[in-house]
Amino acid sequence: MRSSTRKFEKYYNPQLHGEIRMDTNTNVLGSNPAASEFLKHLDIDLNGYPNTYSDGLRGALADLYGLEADNFIVGSGSDEMLDVSFKTFTEWGDTCVSPTPSYTLYNYFVEMNGGKAVNVDLDEDFQLDVDAMLKPKAKIMIMPSPNNPTGNCFRTKDIEEILSRSEGIVIVDEAYGEYARDSMVKRVNEFDNLIVLRTFSKAYAMAALRVGYAIASKPVADMMTAVKIPYSLNMISELAAIEAVKDQDFVKKSVELVNRERPYLDAGLRKLGFETYPSDSNFILAKSPIDHAKLVSGLKEKGILIRDFGTKRRTENCVRPTVGTRELNDLLLGKIQEVIDGC
Amino acid sequence: MRSSTRKFEKYYNPQLHGEIRMDTNTNVLGSNPAASEFLKHLDIDLNGYPNTYSDGLRGALADLYGLEADNFIVGSGSDEMLDVSFKTFTEWGDTCVSPTPSYTLYNYFVEMNGGKAVNVDLDEDFQLDVDAMLKPKAKIMIMPSPNNPTGNCFRTKDIEEILSRSEGIVIVDEAYGEYARDSMVKRVNEFDNLIVLRTFSKAYAMAALRVGYAIASKPVADMMTAVKIPYSLNMISELAAIEAVKDQDFVKKSVELVNRERPYLDAGLRKLGFETYPSDSNFILAKSPIDHAKLVSGLKEKGILIRDFGTKRRTENCVRPTVGTRELNDLLLGKIQEVIDGC
Repeated sequence: MRSSTRKFEKYYNPQLHGEIRMDTNTNVLGSNPAASEFLKHLDIDLNGYPNTYSDGLRGALADLYGLEADNFIVGSGSDEMLDVSFKTFTEWGDTCVSPTPSYTLYNYFVEMNGGKAVNVDLDEDFQLDVDAMLKPKAKIMIMPSPNNPTGNCFRTKDIEEILSRSEGIVIVDEAYGEYARDSMVKRVNEFDNLIVLRTFSKAYAMAALRVGYAIASKPVADMMTAVKIPYSLNMISELAAIEAVKDQDFVKKSVELVNRERPYLDAGLRKLGFETYPSDSNFILAKSPIDHAKLVSGLKEKGILIRDFGTKRRTENCVRPTVGTRELNDLLLGKIQEVIDGC
Repeated sequence: MRSSTRKFEKYYNPQLHGEIRMDTNTNVLGSNPAASEFLKHLDIDLNGYPNTYSDGLRGALADLYGLEADNFIVGSGSDEMLDVSFKTFTEWGDTCVSPTPSYTLYNYFVEMNGGKAVNVDLDEDFQLDVDAMLKPKAKIMIMPSPNNPTGNCFRTKDIEEILSRSEGIVIVDEAYGEYARDSMVKRVNEFDNLIVLRTFSKAYAMAALRVGYAIASKPVADMMTAVKIPYSLNMISELAAIEAVKDQDFVKKSVELVNRERPYLDAGLRKLGFETYPSDSNFILAKSPIDHAKLVSGLKEKGILIRDFGTKRRTENCVRPTVGTRELNDLLLGKIQEVIDGC
């Protein structure tokens, strides 16, 4: 096996028995309605290849953001876009930096592509330590904003400073960007080392279809397009995503729900003894008043999955529930109470 | 840019104006009927992630071949499986060997992953030169059988000899395997360095959905599974592929059509002055009696696309039409006659 991948293990793959999933941060309003409606009347020739670079979806995204189609690279989940970024811009052994605590798959993508993953601690408020991030002179820096699992956005001025001072590529992963006030999408023509990632798996409620995209200045986007696997996005996912882009009402409604429910869930968790962290996203990182593993397994027995970060450094004894509808949040809070009472 | 990818250009991406596509070797019977029927009654939650490693489809394939689910790795086209093979088994700069003439994307996958691509000439009958293939001591050897664009299968005894004498991984790409008499699929437990690739894009008539898979001994499959991007195959494609696997009648009918029509198209091409090469697949490599570029552009004007290999070494002045239905073959032969007459 490739030396950098020898230690890899299979990814989180829970055996499911009908539990309510508040562990994946997908949209609690359910399937994207425009995409679902499109699929009901689906009439395509399965026998033809998709458009090589998904030009239809790239055009729809260009209209949405007021950019050009050539600013976009589209693929099978933003995970593919991460992979393509490393393949395009790193050599073997190159150092790549991401903050910690953050999305666990970044190191996997770095090492899968033969790079050296360096993780730099966030400060006490889970904000970027700009000097420390810049110090290893990374070929690629990756930072999600809002950050996962902590939930907060990084300060725009810190991201700008990193972009200005770094000679490498800086990837801002806005997987939860629809829920946040700030975005770097419209800055791609200003910074020629910026790549922004977005996904249809969260606010767009289409995780089943695996669609993600990268936004960058045209020279950067061109290089990535030449490296990416042709036809990687299947035709149905592309067409459904185009419909979803046109239906911005659903996204707006989804964001409004989270804006309304996040303070409610936060207050409920605090009342139960959790210490919660500020979130700009559709999930909340919360330190459990009882043992994290007992909490998560107790909830699973009662039919609700939440994600456990309790054994990891900086998020000791923490869990990360998705913000639900009022009904789901009440159900979750009630079941947590039961688990605590049973301890 | 990564040094090995700097020269990359965008892939074949023809602008289409309703032409009949006899350039992609997909199934001329049209959309897979079981998959199409499944899509008509589609009722899934788009908001949930697919199963991490596509366990449902892996199980269906295991039943089809009489192997175990753990012998399979499933992903977004067999292209993804190629990419995963390099990520799993090569280090930077490792030599990878494929024959020439062969599928042009192999070198792209090798170089995208930082490897050194070496191409070894096939012999005069487009068969493997076993000693020459083994000489560079490749970390990975890749050979399609049936070969594309030449159409013939490689001899099983040559593949066996390569597997026995090579210390590296040997990938046999059976993209057109359903049309061939021989297959290495059932030999994966016999050779611990064998990976067989298969796709749903050709005989299964589902290119739009991008589904491919690799078959290997369990230790090899386990390593590849740990390296592959989780959830890379979307849920709709996976479920449609499961239905398609259960409907072997369609595959059988498709293969029978090609067995019947290939000699007919071959004879028609010879009658028009082409030199044709023996094919075990659903396409024919044929040396044109007139300039290849004039032929291909002339046919395009008349509404038919065929693939042009005329500028490449060893396939000088050759084109590669897909074997059609009787109606399509007659149409193609008639239009070729018109182009020749107009020269």
